[in-house]
Amino acid sequence: MTVVLPEIIDRTLCQKLDHDDPLAALRDRFDVDDDVIYLDGNSLGRVPRATRARVDELVGHEWARGLVRGWTESAWMDSPHRVGAKLALLLGAAEDEVLVTDSTSVCLFKLLGAALRAHPERPVILTEHDNFPTDLYVAGGVAALLDGREVCAVARSQLHDALDDRVCALLLTHVDFRTGEQHDMRALTSAAHDAGALTIWDLSHSAGAVWLDLRAAGADLATGCGYKYLNGGPGAPAYMFVARALQAELTNPIPGWLGHASPFTFEEAYRPAPGMRGWMTGSPPVLAIAALEQAVDILLAADMAQLAEKSARLTELFIRLSDARLARFGFELATPRDASRRGAQVSLRHHLGYPIVRALIAHNVIADFRDPDLCRFGLAPLYTRYVDVWDAVERIVDVMDGATYARPEYAERGYIT
Amino acid sequence: MTVVLPEIIDRTLCQKLDHDDPLAALRDRFDVDDDVIYLDGNSLGRVPRATRARVDELVGHEWARGLVRGWTESAWMDSPHRVGAKLALLLGAAEDEVLVTDSTSVCLFKLLGAALRAHPERPVILTEHDNFPTDLYVAGGVAALLDGREVCAVARSQLHDALDDRVCALLLTHVDFRTGEQHDMRALTSAAHDAGALTIWDLSHSAGAVWLDLRAAGADLATGCGYKYLNGGPGAPAYMFVARALQAELTNPIPGWLGHASPFTFEEAYRPAPGMRGWMTGSPPVLAIAALEQAVDILLAADMAQLAEKSARLTELFIRLSDARLARFGFELATPRDASRRGAQVSLRHHLGYPIVRALIAHNVIADFRDPDLCRFGLAPLYTRYVDVWDAVERIVDVMDGATYARPEYAERGYIT
Repeated sequence: MTVVLPEIIDRTLCQKLDHDDPLAALRDRFDVDDDVIYLDGNSLGRVPRATRARVDELVGHEWARGLVRGWTESAWMDSPHRVGAKLALLLGAAEDEVLVTDSTSVCLFKLLGAALRAHPERPVILTEHDNFPTDLYVAGGVAALLDGREVCAVARSQLHDALDDRVCALLLTHVDFRTGEQHDMRALTSAAHDAGALTIWDLSHSAGAVWLDLRAAGADLATGCGYKYLNGGPGAPAYMFVARALQAELTNPIPGWLGHASPFTFEEAYRPAPGMRGWMTGSPPVLAIAALEQAVDILLAADMAQLAEKSARLTELFIRLSDARLARFGFELATPRDASRRGAQVSLRHHLGYPIVRALIAHNVIADFRDPDLCRFGLAPLYTRYVDVWDAVERIVDVMDGATYARPEYAERGYIT
Repeated sequence: MTVVLPEIIDRTLCQKLDHDDPLAALRDRFDVDDDVIYLDGNSLGRVPRATRARVDELVGHEWARGLVRGWTESAWMDSPHRVGAKLALLLGAAEDEVLVTDSTSVCLFKLLGAALRAHPERPVILTEHDNFPTDLYVAGGVAALLDGREVCAVARSQLHDALDDRVCALLLTHVDFRTGEQHDMRALTSAAHDAGALTIWDLSHSAGAVWLDLRAAGADLATGCGYKYLNGGPGAPAYMFVARALQAELTNPIPGWLGHASPFTFEEAYRPAPGMRGWMTGSPPVLAIAALEQAVDILLAADMAQLAEKSARLTELFIRLSDARLARFGFELATPRDASRRGAQVSLRHHLGYPIVRALIAHNVIADFRDPDLCRFGLAPLYTRYVDVWDAVERIVDVMDGATYARPEYAERGYIT
């Protein structure tokens, strides 16, 4: 993907880019406070306006008046599949390949457990050192639980070489949470398949931000969270994808009553429901799924190509401005310059990154920090404007020029989520 | 527990019982529609009035204005532990023994996996045929994943005899979902311990309805759902209890980043946080926990003894009225007559139970049905009045006398949750 921006960039140009932005109107579907420049949608997305009304309707009407009848009358029971089918459109999956359920970690555990169990002759989960830690921990957890399994974590550059006939699953996060670097899903999936391994993609930093086509890439399994670019709210439920071809071969290692072929006959023996229904475990988190559905509906009002293109342009703009105006303060770009190799975030390294990010937050530019030296700027395409990027860089310059970040109150460590 | 009700029961007596009920005022804290007699709080509890406002505040203020800062500024990150500590008061546990997380099924999987892994010399999960199916399925799932483990399900009467030195964990639902029969937790825990086994109690039909004292009973592990007598909303998160003495010995088989001793340093290797923090897996479902917290606060305004006593009296009243007025229609009591051996529900067997329950629902008495012949009437002590029991029995008589249930539209099978 090539992103072309004019040679000379100023605020007026950014306003023009916003004016011409086919997604501009969708920003109005979020509850936006213009005093704050929010560049942390890669951690927690914004609130869709419709979410507040929908949640209130669910609590005050469907639940209060419908009571237990809501499971059928308000279609709560079907919501994991209905919202999964909508999400499928953002993932390049078929509607019967995606389910909303559990947390990303639990989904990952289920997928890994299923894969390992189906291929006892292949004991290794292959991943990379820099994968999101929870993915490493879950992989370690499932390997420890099953006999004789192990996790092999290598450097990114060693992944291809490490794909051998002992590898059951290649587990990767598609867009790196630290640098925003994007794996080539198609190439890695193909390499994994050549080695006889399955792929498991964590799409937490991808869905809603970059182009995804799981079917075209031949992806086998995937999961991701609902609270970043999907805007489902804090701790929103996750989703899981199982390619149709694998749905009969792999089975849910945490079988629960709602994944039973006939849940309401309460049989003593488990018989999995066909397809994604068999991957359900407990009762669906109805309130949280309703919130997520509102958010997904906004994404579907865009299309994946528009979202991906805007992510590329926003990040390109940030990188250009950073080169021109931030490099002199010692910031170094950690994100790939090739737009097709990055997500919707830009990360800048700075040895004083922690107090800098704290000072930025105090000046209403909300970014975040990741050890040891990364300032992360998430540019969620649905509600981030080009002028927001311009203004954010202005404020970063102000903070650095004024050395505001050097104040003692910003030096104290705590966590910034 | 002995429940004494007057010899002659009429509606005036029921009104007097309501008038004298120390919990009566708490009913006003729920959004109650007086046209409906709701006797299905054992499936899905009612809506606390405070929940609607709290959820709106969370979405419209904490999330919309606070954005990612809500994790610290609105104490979202701590909510699984804060609400767990409150729930501990309803379970007879210490505040550092309970965590709100995941679904009941996933909690159960974690507890079973931890127990089996800690005791490889004991390969058996002992349970009963009539346990809630999801508990059986999850036990089967975890046993299948670990090498050489098995589930042994026996009749309730055989549990004591089946406790031998191969049993790792005795897994039981404290109050049976079909009949409302309550296990003697203390006696069974003691028997399990004598055999060298741990106990895992599913408290889904107990917490908020009956007296619980996990510490006094010597219970080891427990879990339960948040949406029945706890009134946390459809698909509310579950909770898990790990006795303090076991917290160092057992470890979470689904380790995630939020259970890490230092989540925000994003280390490659997992180091569990001490205590219940190590049992966290993914990001907490903030919206759903907030809803649950409002509901738990109401329960804490009562006390466990009052809740348990009212459950006993409501069920006694139902049984007395059923004996007097329903037996002639062929209903048979499936729930123990000894109040100390039952939960807050009364189940009546009837071979035409399905159309009867459907007709009752159509006449605004919401009960539910479980195969093959059980009509379940849940009498949640927080918001069910004695007159509700009286009026419900009146309407059952009307439906049976008028043979309304025999109408063809009630015969068609579907599920009643």
